[in-house]
Amino acid sequence: MKNLLVIQSGGPTAVINSSLAGVIKGGFDNGEKVGKIFGGLFGIEGVTEEKIVSLEKFREEGMLDLLRQTPSSYLGSCRKKLPKLEEDREFYERIFEVFKKYDIGYFFCIGGNDSMDTVDKMSRYAELVGSDVRVIGIPKTIDNDLALTDHTPGYGSSAKFVANSMRQLKKDTEVYGMPSVIVLEAMGRNAGWLTAAAALANDESTRAADIVCLPEVDFEMDAFLARVERVSREQETVMIAVSEGIHDKNGTYVMEGVSGVPKENDRFGHAALGGVGQLVRNCISNGLGLKVRSIELSTLQRCWASGASLCDVNEAFEAGYAGVGYGCEGMTGVVPGFRRVSDKPYKIEIIPYDVKQIANVEKKIPTEMIAEDGFGVTDKFLKYAMPLIEGEPQLKYKNGQLQFAPKVW
Amino acid sequence: MKNLLVIQSGGPTAVINSSLAGVIKGGFDNGEKVGKIFGGLFGIEGVTEEKIVSLEKFREEGMLDLLRQTPSSYLGSCRKKLPKLEEDREFYERIFEVFKKYDIGYFFCIGGNDSMDTVDKMSRYAELVGSDVRVIGIPKTIDNDLALTDHTPGYGSSAKFVANSMRQLKKDTEVYGMPSVIVLEAMGRNAGWLTAAAALANDESTRAADIVCLPEVDFEMDAFLARVERVSREQETVMIAVSEGIHDKNGTYVMEGVSGVPKENDRFGHAALGGVGQLVRNCISNGLGLKVRSIELSTLQRCWASGASLCDVNEAFEAGYAGVGYGCEGMTGVVPGFRRVSDKPYKIEIIPYDVKQIANVEKKIPTEMIAEDGFGVTDKFLKYAMPLIEGEPQLKYKNGQLQFAPKVW
Repeated sequence: MKNLLVIQSGGPTAVINSSLAGVIKGGFDNGEKVGKIFGGLFGIEGVTEEKIVSLEKFREEGMLDLLRQTPSSYLGSCRKKLPKLEEDREFYERIFEVFKKYDIGYFFCIGGNDSMDTVDKMSRYAELVGSDVRVIGIPKTIDNDLALTDHTPGYGSSAKFVANSMRQLKKDTEVYGMPSVIVLEAMGRNAGWLTAAAALANDESTRAADIVCLPEVDFEMDAFLARVERVSREQETVMIAVSEGIHDKNGTYVMEGVSGVPKENDRFGHAALGGVGQLVRNCISNGLGLKVRSIELSTLQRCWASGASLCDVNEAFEAGYAGVGYGCEGMTGVVPGFRRVSDKPYKIEIIPYDVKQIANVEKKIPTEMIAEDGFGVTDKFLKYAMPLIEGEPQLKYKNGQLQFAPKVW
Repeated sequence: MKNLLVIQSGGPTAVINSSLAGVIKGGFDNGEKVGKIFGGLFGIEGVTEEKIVSLEKFREEGMLDLLRQTPSSYLGSCRKKLPKLEEDREFYERIFEVFKKYDIGYFFCIGGNDSMDTVDKMSRYAELVGSDVRVIGIPKTIDNDLALTDHTPGYGSSAKFVANSMRQLKKDTEVYGMPSVIVLEAMGRNAGWLTAAAALANDESTRAADIVCLPEVDFEMDAFLARVERVSREQETVMIAVSEGIHDKNGTYVMEGVSGVPKENDRFGHAALGGVGQLVRNCISNGLGLKVRSIELSTLQRCWASGASLCDVNEAFEAGYAGVGYGCEGMTGVVPGFRRVSDKPYKIEIIPYDVKQIANVEKKIPTEMIAEDGFGVTDKFLKYAMPLIEGEPQLKYKNGQLQFAPKVW
C-alpha cells in the first residue's frame, strides 16, 4: 500500500479540476492499493519545497462535485521546465526524497505539453534509480495540441466559450442594421484549434463566423483585407476570429512584425503574444474604412467554468480516474488519452499512451480540416469538434454565483 | 379592437427580448382588446420607413421560450434622438400615418434613458393631436440608471456576468502563487452600477474584488496607486474593477485626459470611451512594477444570455407583459417600473411610472452605497444588488450552442 500524490501544472483550464477530482476519486476507489491522497501545491516546484497537503477531505459528500465545477488549478501551478537528468541530478533526488518521506507510490501530473516533459523526465529518472513510483501524466490544455490523443480535456470547454461568444456577439453586432466588423482574438500560439472553434458557432439559422485566421496558415494582410472587403460587400456584419499566433510566411508573428512592440518572453521561451486582434482591427478600419470592434477573450476563455462543456467535464474526470487505474496496474510513464471510436454517435475509449511520444510534440490542425482558401475550416473539423462542446453540466450556484470547492488546507 | 406595435431601441441587453416576449404574450392574452401583433424593425427609424413585420408566428409552441433566451435586440435597434415637437412636426406626422395604416392602438418602445425620451415625445404628440394611440415605455438598460424604478431589466444579467467573470478570473489569477493584478473594465459611462457588481463576486470563501472604481467618485491616480500598492503588500493577487467612465475632479474622463486620444462622439453626443482598463494597467505596471493584466469585457457583458440571471429574465418578461396591461387599461405615457417591497425574501411589485419623470434622467449610485474611501461599495449595495443576479434559467442548447429564436420575417 502506497500513497498518492497529484499536482497540476502549466496554464489553468475550466476542467483541470475535474481531472483532479477523477484522480482523487480513483484513489478512493482503489483503496486496496492506494493509501492516503496528497496534493502538491504549485506544481513540481511546490513538491521540492514540500508543499504537500492532504486531500482526504474530499471524501465528504458533495466536495468532489464542487471541485469538478471549480475553474483553474485548485492546487496551484507552476511553469518550471525540468532540468535534464544529466545536468541536475540533485533536483530529482530532492523530489524522490519527498516521495519517500510521504511514502508516495503513485505520482500524477495534470498538464499539457510542457508538463508531459516533466512526466517523461521523472519516469525516466525513476527507472534509472530503480524506484517503483508510478509516474503518470493526465492530459489537459485548452490548446488541444497534445499528440496521439484524439483531443485533450480543457479544449471542449474553451471551444464552447469561443463559439458561444461568437454567436452572442453576432446577435449584438447586427442590431443597428449597419455595416460592422467584429474581430475576436482567441488563444493558441502555434495550433489554431481554439480559434477554429469559432466556426462551430454557425448553424442553419445563424452565420456567426465568416473568416477564421489560423496560425497553421501564413497570414498575408493584403489577402486578408481583400477577403474582409468581399464579405462586407455581401453582408452587413463580418464576424472574424483570429488566433493570437498568426504569422507571416517567414514565421514572424503578425503582432511582432507589424507593431514593433518589444518581444517579451515567458519562462518557457515562448514569445508573449496578445493584442493582435486590436492590430487587425486597426488595419481593417484604416484600410477599408469599416466600423470594427476587436474583442480579446483573454483568460476568460480558459476559466469560464460556468459555460463548460459537459462532455469535457466528464472526460476530464474519466482521464484522471483512468490514470489512477493505470498506476494501480503497475504502468508508469503513460498518459490516458482518447481514441475516437465513432463520430455519430460520438464515442471514445480511453487508452494509455507512452508519454515519450507526447512530451514536447505539438499537434496542429491537419490540412484536411482547413479550408482551401485558408480563411476557414472544413466539415471534417466541424464533425470532429462539435461533439466536444456538447452538453451543459448542472452547476451549483449560490446568490447567483458559481460555487467553488473550499480550500482544504 | 386595435393592433399592437412594438419596437426595441438603444443598446442591446441579454434580456431585452424577454421583455419583447412579455409584450407579445401580453398582446395574445388581451385578445379582446388587442388585435394583431406587429414589430417595427430597427427602432423608430424603421417605423418611419414602414419596416413593420407580423409577430403572429410567436403563437407557435416554444417560440416565445426561444425568444426569451435570445440575446440582443431581436427586432433590431436604432439610436435616433427624436426631434422636438415644435422643430419637426412632420416626423411625428409620418409615424402616426404609419400607425393609422396598420391600425395601431398600442405602441411599445423597449429601451433605456434615451428611448424613454422617445416615449415621452410621442405620447405628448399623441395628446397634442388627440390620438388615442397608447404610447408605453418598457424599461431596459444594462446601466441600471433609469430613475424611479428600483432597478432596470438588463442590469441583473450583465451584473451577473461581471461578478462571475471576476470570480473565475480570481481563480485563474492565483494559480502561480505570484503577485499579480487584474484590471477588469466594465461598461457604464456615468453610473457605476455595473462596475459595482464586481463586488458581488466576494463571499465567505472567495475574495474576488478588492478595489472598485466608480464614475460616481472622482478618480485620482496617485491615491489609486497607493491603494493598489497597499493591497498588494497584504495579498498576492489584487482584483480591480474600473468603470469605463472614471474621471478626475474636473469631469475629464481618465481616458481622455491621460491618453490624448481624439475624442470620438457617438450619435447621442456621449464621448466614446473604452480602453481605460489598459491605461490603468499601464499605470500600475509602470508605477508599481507589478505584473498586471487588463481585461475588457466589451460587448460580451451586454449579450451574454447564456449566463443570464433568472430573476432578470423573468422580470424583463413581466415588465413587458404589465406594459400591455397598462395600455389595455387606457394608460399612456407610462413605464412599468419596479418598487421593492422587501429585500429578504426579495419581493417587488410592478407599478406604472410617468415617463416624463424618467426620460433623460440618470440615476447614479447613491452615496450610502459607496464605500467611504471611494474604492468599493457598502453592504447596502450588496443587499440591493444580490437578489437581482439570482437564479439560472433553464436554457435550450443544441450541439453545445445556445439556441435563438428564428427570424419570422
